[in-house]
Amino acid sequence: MGESRRTVVVGGVAAGMSTATRLRRNDEHRGIVVLERGPHVSFANCGLPYHVGGVIEDRDDLLLQTPASLAARFGLDVRTRHEVVDVDRARRVVRVRALETGEEYEEPYDELVVATGARAVRPPIPGVERAHTLRDLDDMDAILAALHGTDGDAARTAVVVGAGFIGIELAENLTRRGLAVTLVEREPQVLPPLDPEMAVIVDARLRAHGVTVRTSAAVTAIDATTASLDDGTTLPADVVVTAVGVVPESALAERAGLEVGERGGIVVDARQRTSDPSVFAVGDVAVKRDALTGDATLVPLAQTANRQGRLVADVIAGRAVSAAPVLGTAVVGAFGTTAAMVGWSEKRLRAAGRPVRVIHTHPSDHAGYYPGARSMALKLLVDPTTDAILGAQGVGESGVDKRIDVIATAMRGGLRASDLADLELAYAPQYGSAKDPVNMLGMVADNLAAGVTDSVQWHEIDTVTRDGATVVDVRTPGEYASGTLPGAVNVPLDELRRRHAELPAGRLVVTCAVGQRGHTATRLLRQLGREDVANLDGGYRTWRQAVGV
Amino acid sequence: MGESRRTVVVGGVAAGMSTATRLRRNDEHRGIVVLERGPHVSFANCGLPYHVGGVIEDRDDLLLQTPASLAARFGLDVRTRHEVVDVDRARRVVRVRALETGEEYEEPYDELVVATGARAVRPPIPGVERAHTLRDLDDMDAILAALHGTDGDAARTAVVVGAGFIGIELAENLTRRGLAVTLVEREPQVLPPLDPEMAVIVDARLRAHGVTVRTSAAVTAIDATTASLDDGTTLPADVVVTAVGVVPESALAERAGLEVGERGGIVVDARQRTSDPSVFAVGDVAVKRDALTGDATLVPLAQTANRQGRLVADVIAGRAVSAAPVLGTAVVGAFGTTAAMVGWSEKRLRAAGRPVRVIHTHPSDHAGYYPGARSMALKLLVDPTTDAILGAQGVGESGVDKRIDVIATAMRGGLRASDLADLELAYAPQYGSAKDPVNMLGMVADNLAAGVTDSVQWHEIDTVTRDGATVVDVRTPGEYASGTLPGAVNVPLDELRRRHAELPAGRLVVTCAVGQRGHTATRLLRQLGREDVANLDGGYRTWRQAVGV
Repeated sequence: MGESRRTVVVGGVAAGMSTATRLRRNDEHRGIVVLERGPHVSFANCGLPYHVGGVIEDRDDLLLQTPASLAARFGLDVRTRHEVVDVDRARRVVRVRALETGEEYEEPYDELVVATGARAVRPPIPGVERAHTLRDLDDMDAILAALHGTDGDAARTAVVVGAGFIGIELAENLTRRGLAVTLVEREPQVLPPLDPEMAVIVDARLRAHGVTVRTSAAVTAIDATTASLDDGTTLPADVVVTAVGVVPESALAERAGLEVGERGGIVVDARQRTSDPSVFAVGDVAVKRDALTGDATLVPLAQTANRQGRLVADVIAGRAVSAAPVLGTAVVGAFGTTAAMVGWSEKRLRAAGRPVRVIHTHPSDHAGYYPGARSMALKLLVDPTTDAILGAQGVGESGVDKRIDVIATAMRGGLRASDLADLELAYAPQYGSAKDPVNMLGMVADNLAAGVTDSVQWHEIDTVTRDGATVVDVRTPGEYASGTLPGAVNVPLDELRRRHAELPAGRLVVTCAVGQRGHTATRLLRQLGREDVANLDGGYRTWRQAVGV
Repeated sequence: MGESRRTVVVGGVAAGMSTATRLRRNDEHRGIVVLERGPHVSFANCGLPYHVGGVIEDRDDLLLQTPASLAARFGLDVRTRHEVVDVDRARRVVRVRALETGEEYEEPYDELVVATGARAVRPPIPGVERAHTLRDLDDMDAILAALHGTDGDAARTAVVVGAGFIGIELAENLTRRGLAVTLVEREPQVLPPLDPEMAVIVDARLRAHGVTVRTSAAVTAIDATTASLDDGTTLPADVVVTAVGVVPESALAERAGLEVGERGGIVVDARQRTSDPSVFAVGDVAVKRDALTGDATLVPLAQTANRQGRLVADVIAGRAVSAAPVLGTAVVGAFGTTAAMVGWSEKRLRAAGRPVRVIHTHPSDHAGYYPGARSMALKLLVDPTTDAILGAQGVGESGVDKRIDVIATAMRGGLRASDLADLELAYAPQYGSAKDPVNMLGMVADNLAAGVTDSVQWHEIDTVTRDGATVVDVRTPGEYASGTLPGAVNVPLDELRRRHAELPAGRLVVTCAVGQRGHTATRLLRQLGREDVANLDGGYRTWRQAVGV
């Protein structure tokens, strides 16, 4: 039958290869050429840090497909080490350079799919040439070679620049390899996408496992054996890896005159079409639409890349499909703890001037009466006007990814925060609680939305006490004695009915361990005639985490 | 201030105690009396099997609250061993018997909340008096006493009648105690709420851990040391426990003339109000509304009981809230495997004459290239007209509860099956896959809804091959040699493009290990001119599980 049409895909990893294989299933008769600048296609880039750490022992496990396997199964013409150097959109041809030979040739297309991904940002630090980044197998091999060292002189110290998701994974895996690791982050916290009082739990875990964490610090110079910080510290650094983010690999698209957004992403419509109707862009290189605002955003995540590849293959095949806006659900593990998030953080919402209702809880991953229950910290961000869920974060040893996935699904389904109270989640004592942590978030949200209670955030305590509020700690005397908020008075909840008259006039802020007893106390005091009572959200535990007592 | 109004709650466990504590938070000035026939309130009934098995070591861990603790914290008047024997609805008083003294008295109410729960069905078997059931701490204590035996003669054999959720938990925990356990189920499968090809995975796990499983079998007699089956077998049975379901404890409500539904549940409206506007019913005793049909149903689950208690407290406090219909999400663990479900099963849908699209998959709980990945079996049930999700089931060692919770949330949010493809779920290789198992279900659903593929179910294979279809196994020769469907021919997927002409004319059913290669083969053959090609849903693995090869 011959080729009916011809699609050229530039880039052969997550988005590109999802495009090519789905397109083949959609259309057996189409010519499909995948041009990949690197030596590998379809490799497991999210696994790279774990081969560095030796968790994934066999390097070959990261190579999911080869050009030969893709030719056999999908009839794809996959050419590695072939770089597209130019696009002639008028003639619909790309100019390709075979990197092994230097030879150049033209390749015609009916549709062009740009899936060139993102590249690691290299911070402008003197000596940064010695620093590694980690985006592909070549990068990984270079790090492994540096770890082995030369002349049997294995690396013993490492500096990781950037404490985002990849930086955390690198710090963990380099520690696992026996290196003394310093993690340097310019922001005042690790994991900048999270809010500080959540990220600090990960910070503590990193320190507990021997990582030296330096926040609010910048690397100013790198030399052969050290890295220097802006406070004058010199850190031993046999190996330096920078992980300060990625930018879209959109130089080709720019040269081709395609519309590119401010942060370097290729502008696409809901069908991944660029400013040229014959050219599509997918994955990390393409601008996404934010689920909260509808605004353009960049979300360089593997799951989104894979979905967009599938989508554009359907668009090219003529299906009336369109891309969902992105929530940016993400997760990272660090020394047995898990941090996950979806949507926007509180700081991002506040920076954008959006009103936000904040809820912190500290539930167990499963019923407390069943052995092995582990506490987690959860945070829910809610639109106070519409009760819409704006974001969520979780940190803990077990069950965090499940709760964030449930909330991400609720957000996609348009459920309100209060609706979380009514979700029917699978309960047996080893899996959850009759009132699951997600249900509990919904119940707190419902209480706040209905106005039956009011809360104060950890960062508001200083102001409200300065303005005259009294903090009432309703825990037991033993708990109170082991640490409380400055100036707090102690009236245990179970004595509050008969002792409430002891409390001074004026505003009251109630606190307990995690906010549950405080809620009961708040309700009690309000109905006993105290008009100005609020509950410290998340209780003493959130406050203590946040202020670092 | 005195009591403004007076609410009497009958029953002090999940639903009743949730009602009472929430009502107190809603209204400090109300009189709240909780009357509980048993000796305990607010105990962890879902934990009972695990104390039998010694997993929960300390019996006191099951006692979450006492009348004294509830009085101190919530000002509740909780009376255990007080049974409500009658309701005089005209005078709004209940007649109460103090079981310790035999004394009777009247208790007036403004609102009455019936939370009497459900009682275990005792099957009409001669000798069943010796059999235990497991609903409360007294039952549990009796089982433990029977296990210890008399005269130092500890029980060595047990027969558990009924292989539902509780029966499975009992079989596991009695095995853990060292007993030789036979699990007897009248239905042809364990876990009757699941479909048979899913439940069989749990069946195999039970057998692998030494449980003797007897399905399609009924106990006909119980004597002092044995239990007899309807096939003439006599089983040694130092202990017999029946777990064949529960019925609403609605005798009191019936006596009071409240409307009771066919299966014995108290009829309530969306605000839990019975046929008497001053009387409410919540928890296992109340009829629920099914989420799929809106019909009356019974769902005796702790999570629903707790939610309804909270709801009715808000109704009584005057909030305009109403109960969500129930999906019946449930989970059970057995010897390290997990079975979970939500919504309706295939057999229930078919019995009701509802058209259903069925999807089976066998994904890994996390990325295959990361160590420790475990395979699970998932099943999705979809309305073929509307693409609505009708139910889901999962069985596997890890990550099953997460996926069922996500699907339950999607159902509550009204997402269609195809929408699951676009959920943004937290991905790092130790937590999931770039295309999560739930995404994959959505992609299959989307393919079926769009008509780009067609599938055949495991139970249709006999018919379609008898009608002349050829089964084409597209796995490798090695996989084919290790076992395949009767009469299947082998053309490996990677050779199909050049060898497809070898295949006979007529209908083709493609199969592979789990359905993924089969999907690619189906698409390929269709576009190579074969018009009648379908993919065996779930592949050889689902078929083999189902037929028990």
